[in-house]
Amino acid sequence: MEFPQVVMQRYATKTFDGKKVPQEKFAQLQELIRNAASSYNIQPWRIKVVTDDATKKALAPHAWNQPQITTCSHLLVFCADTELEDNIDMLAKAGAPEQYVAAMHGFAEGLTGERRLAWAQRQVYLALGNAINGAKALGLDSCPMEGFSPEEFAKVLKLPANIVPTTLCPIGYASDAPKPKVRFPKEHVFF
Amino acid sequence: MEFPQVVMQRYATKTFDGKKVPQEKFAQLQELIRNAASSYNIQPWRIKVVTDDATKKALAPHAWNQPQITTCSHLLVFCADTELEDNIDMLAKAGAPEQYVAAMHGFAEGLTGERRLAWAQRQVYLALGNAINGAKALGLDSCPMEGFSPEEFAKVLKLPANIVPTTLCPIGYASDAPKPKVRFPKEHVFF
Repeated sequence: MEFPQVVMQRYATKTFDGKKVPQEKFAQLQELIRNAASSYNIQPWRIKVVTDDATKKALAPHAWNQPQITTCSHLLVFCADTELEDNIDMLAKAGAPEQYVAAMHGFAEGLTGERRLAWAQRQVYLALGNAINGAKALGLDSCPMEGFSPEEFAKVLKLPANIVPTTLCPIGYASDAPKPKVRFPKEHVFF
Repeated sequence: MEFPQVVMQRYATKTFDGKKVPQEKFAQLQELIRNAASSYNIQPWRIKVVTDDATKKALAPHAWNQPQITTCSHLLVFCADTELEDNIDMLAKAGAPEQYVAAMHGFAEGLTGERRLAWAQRQVYLALGNAINGAKALGLDSCPMEGFSPEEFAKVLKLPANIVPTTLCPIGYASDAPKPKVRFPKEHVFF
């Protein structure tokens, strides 16, 4: 599927039919997500994959019992990872030039508290974008979701403090139909 | 081009050859950006399009004189728009159900100060993702850039306080070549 078709056909699926996404197809989606862009290539994301019904049921009440949580095949919990230094060290080991590594460390040092989390969360949305477009390109459906409690999700999933649930993205096969897209006019968006 | 090819071939272009992107092709890119997903469909973004050399030259020193700024065809300045209420009103006028409009207003009221800006900026990265993937799909190159002064850009571009420069995305034709992608292993990213 050409990318313009992907963009126009993707929509936020409200209910899935419960069918499982084959492992091979899910692996293709993972590659699209993993290869997303990020600032400095720091990739400050970790993605929890939930496929078992018991965990989905435990999470659902913390996401307003929205049916996507329990009817999807794979529930992706996109988390920001605020331990940027670990990622920078991994990039250094992977061969990033010394000067570049120093610049990244300087950048990370200057990013503290809420600003660090906000920065990491912005990058997560680039990975999320690849997930929702990638799903459609692979014949799957998805739903980016912010309506959940990050704190409760972190408890249920036993996440350490540096792994912060940021957005959900259930993946599967839609059992609903898309509505027409409503977008602001080009003249409003671009100036 | 299939989406997986787009994802793998896209890269952060460091220098462009100065050739202009035809207006028709740029219009196609605008459609891909405009149709990006956003939470509640609030589309809290405004995108300044800079094509004239004088403005690019005035902006360059506030982006470390990185060559992308002056060698690209179209410089997109992705801004977060924190006047969410205006967007919600536009969605109401476009026919959004009353209950949904009330929910959006409640949501926006609860989002204040830095948290409101951070939320809007996250959404901007979904539009940015469509820009960088969309450019490649259309045979163009791009470079997401955070290395600039939002304050100085706002001054040069005479932006009101609610329009906050968040990320740059020069668009054009590359005159450099991509390096191999470095990404953390699947086993690190997904857990």
